[in-house]
Amino acid sequence: MNRRDFLKAATSTSVAFAVPGCTEAYRTGSSKIAANLPNFVIILCDDLGYGDLSCYGHPTIRTSNLDRMAVEGQRWTDFYAGESFCTPSRAALLTGRLAVRSGLCGDNRRELYPDSTGGLPQTEITIAKALKSKGYATCCIGKWHLGHLPQYLPTKHGFDYYFGIPYSNDMDKTVADESQIFQQPKIQYWNVPLMRNDEIIERPADQNTITKRYSLAATNFIRKNKNRPFFLYLAHNMPHVPLFTSPDFKNKSSRGLYGDVVEEIDWGVGLILETLRREHLARNTFVVFTSDNGPWLSFNDLAGSAGTLREGKGSTFEGGMRVPCIMWWPGKIKPGIVRDIGCTMDLFTTILTLASTDIPQDRAIDGLNLSPALFGKGPSPRNVMFYYRGTRLYAARKGPYKAHFFTKSAFGKDESVRHDTPLIYHLGQDPGEKYDLADRYPEVIADIQKEVIGHLRTLVVGEDQLTKRIRKR
Amino acid sequence: MNRRDFLKAATSTSVAFAVPGCTEAYRTGSSKIAANLPNFVIILCDDLGYGDLSCYGHPTIRTSNLDRMAVEGQRWTDFYAGESFCTPSRAALLTGRLAVRSGLCGDNRRELYPDSTGGLPQTEITIAKALKSKGYATCCIGKWHLGHLPQYLPTKHGFDYYFGIPYSNDMDKTVADESQIFQQPKIQYWNVPLMRNDEIIERPADQNTITKRYSLAATNFIRKNKNRPFFLYLAHNMPHVPLFTSPDFKNKSSRGLYGDVVEEIDWGVGLILETLRREHLARNTFVVFTSDNGPWLSFNDLAGSAGTLREGKGSTFEGGMRVPCIMWWPGKIKPGIVRDIGCTMDLFTTILTLASTDIPQDRAIDGLNLSPALFGKGPSPRNVMFYYRGTRLYAARKGPYKAHFFTKSAFGKDESVRHDTPLIYHLGQDPGEKYDLADRYPEVIADIQKEVIGHLRTLVVGEDQLTKRIRKR
Repeated sequence: MNRRDFLKAATSTSVAFAVPGCTEAYRTGSSKIAANLPNFVIILCDDLGYGDLSCYGHPTIRTSNLDRMAVEGQRWTDFYAGESFCTPSRAALLTGRLAVRSGLCGDNRRELYPDSTGGLPQTEITIAKALKSKGYATCCIGKWHLGHLPQYLPTKHGFDYYFGIPYSNDMDKTVADESQIFQQPKIQYWNVPLMRNDEIIERPADQNTITKRYSLAATNFIRKNKNRPFFLYLAHNMPHVPLFTSPDFKNKSSRGLYGDVVEEIDWGVGLILETLRREHLARNTFVVFTSDNGPWLSFNDLAGSAGTLREGKGSTFEGGMRVPCIMWWPGKIKPGIVRDIGCTMDLFTTILTLASTDIPQDRAIDGLNLSPALFGKGPSPRNVMFYYRGTRLYAARKGPYKAHFFTKSAFGKDESVRHDTPLIYHLGQDPGEKYDLADRYPEVIADIQKEVIGHLRTLVVGEDQLTKRIRKR
Repeated sequence: MNRRDFLKAATSTSVAFAVPGCTEAYRTGSSKIAANLPNFVIILCDDLGYGDLSCYGHPTIRTSNLDRMAVEGQRWTDFYAGESFCTPSRAALLTGRLAVRSGLCGDNRRELYPDSTGGLPQTEITIAKALKSKGYATCCIGKWHLGHLPQYLPTKHGFDYYFGIPYSNDMDKTVADESQIFQQPKIQYWNVPLMRNDEIIERPADQNTITKRYSLAATNFIRKNKNRPFFLYLAHNMPHVPLFTSPDFKNKSSRGLYGDVVEEIDWGVGLILETLRREHLARNTFVVFTSDNGPWLSFNDLAGSAGTLREGKGSTFEGGMRVPCIMWWPGKIKPGIVRDIGCTMDLFTTILTLASTDIPQDRAIDGLNLSPALFGKGPSPRNVMFYYRGTRLYAARKGPYKAHFFTKSAFGKDESVRHDTPLIYHLGQDPGEKYDLADRYPEVIADIQKEVIGHLRTLVVGEDQLTKRIRKR
């Protein structure tokens, strides 16, 4: 089946379309449906960098569907992931809380691994769990990475349905020699499971088709739930290494394999938006496209690009946490480039507010309601961003100024460097964080330090979930 | 007069609008006008970098008019200036020939200076001179930099009218201490002349208003010549340092002074396109916006950004020569992002072809006709780019591969380094020129070397115009 046929079949309501591994599996959920509640779709990429889309300036990766989405909607220039690593970033997005609160970030381990026994605690409230109270159909497709033991899976966190690889696609490695496995990847090098709900249905997951299957599963979910409000969380495993793409996209991008993979994700975005249009759902569906952190620069040409920003994944420089973000809701969102500050945690608060769902009052919520900026009624309420690495606050931004209290190489064995006089960058004038202004702006340092002190005063650090692991005998 | 009033006044046909220093000065030219010939507008910036526009990914510089121009027209990702320096780049653009042929590039001096006595030889044919044979009204506004002695001025090279500063705005320095003059520039630090035709009408030129005056002069020219074919060459002095902007734009950009200056240029572009629309000329006018070379990185936050590209002005890495390029011609040009290779020299050949004007046959012309790519009929005919520095060929690109035969820091005193095995970069996979592939692609080296040998075999180096200067006694 070629690309055009795929598109036609997958977006047609009259064609029964079988997606291997994800058919006939949606729970029906509550039949009490509140009228006029909007639908929500979050499409999250893995390790996609700030500079990797055409509309963010990449010269050779073709992302025509995302470019169009950006023109029809909003392209945000100063939008952040909650952390510079997969697990904490996802915890922050789904709970609206810094990962340091839920314990999904650690100072010893930075991720969950296949031997991990921790995960997102049941006490946490995800977007999905909150929306269930309003009768939403909820679906998680793709990478979860918030605990793969039964008690931590998406189906235990408010999602009716799960289809995906529960952690990173480079885990469960079967070969010792790493020298060529990323340059010439084969499915069997990574014995990662593909799950449907709580069961493993394929192992190793066929990663060649994973992006396409995720996108098609997303459109299936949309079509099956078109008569009730829904929340779809599609978290692609790509473009995290190892990079795989289906034959339709192989060797098509002049950017090479990385470009092929991003272009297949872009195709999937086009498919989803087209499905929403054809099902007459576009004007009632808020779609957000973003990334979990910056590019994994250690992988050279297999990694993405942070564009003009400094550093990448793992770092608290901008390239580690500032990500592409496109918001789309035809007829509702005011189209344009938004240069306000936003954050994936804000999606929690914004979505709950739009769904007339109460924001939890019994805990600290870091997300803010971006509605004023979305609908052109006013600026984003966010003026401050905190940059964590594990449980330590490394940097903070207020308005255009960013203070680095600690810096450390993204992945090196070096100790973190404490800056008694913080480094100060003006992110408006100097988005690449090149020119330290600390000696010129002592009052800026004082102002940001005041924010930090206020923040830390009430911070309760959650129990570290990342160090929990199977004991070796 | 505020910005809105300016726009209204300057684009209204019923309001007589006085622009200081540029009123009532257009020659009437030939009255024989060929029917249906298109108009041409080239807007050239000075030292604007590849990453400096919103639509090329800059996070904080607001260029809404250029962004719209890009959506309505074509945004080129792989478009080059003819050289990485002002004088040779401009010579290449206007003559369609590498500057090494016309002698407007040198190994000792890289520019023309106020003490220079050379310039563009009369034997060269500019776009303006060629179009005069078809009855075009021709106008040069802004920075010339191809010789300021009477025999070299625009009016001696096919332009009916000239209004501008004849060389760089940082010349004719009046103060010895350079430490603060660029950070806190004042008009009187640079005693540059402002000329109308062959006369100096203001000295020092009031650079605070220069960008606005250029843009308004451009719209005046368009309105006065709306009933005949015209060629407008608007070469802004900005955003070359020293940076000046009119009060309307001062302190408006979060990118700082550099952003203010680019946003004022963007405003002028909006004014020009709006004038073309109001005068019902848009569908018969081909407009190109581009830059003469990459950002002058030595000036830190006063310099632009090459985005993901390596290095800037003065260098033969991509950041020195690859520039933003937006082409606009509503109803004629096929809108989209064009990833083919193009070059400012191609404007010569493309424009002459569109104006049914013969391409000179008595000399080597480096420009190619980009019409197939413009009108969506086929790819750009350009597959090869030569990167000169002075009279030496430093690098060559063929398709996605680029070979560096020599490299040298952009402005340092170091000797150039000869690479016996050229550095090879794949610009599609690696636009930042990070990963040398020479050992993997010997056949690519051989193929590019063949192109270079063919090129050099017939090259006739022009008499060096840049070393000619007033003798000191």
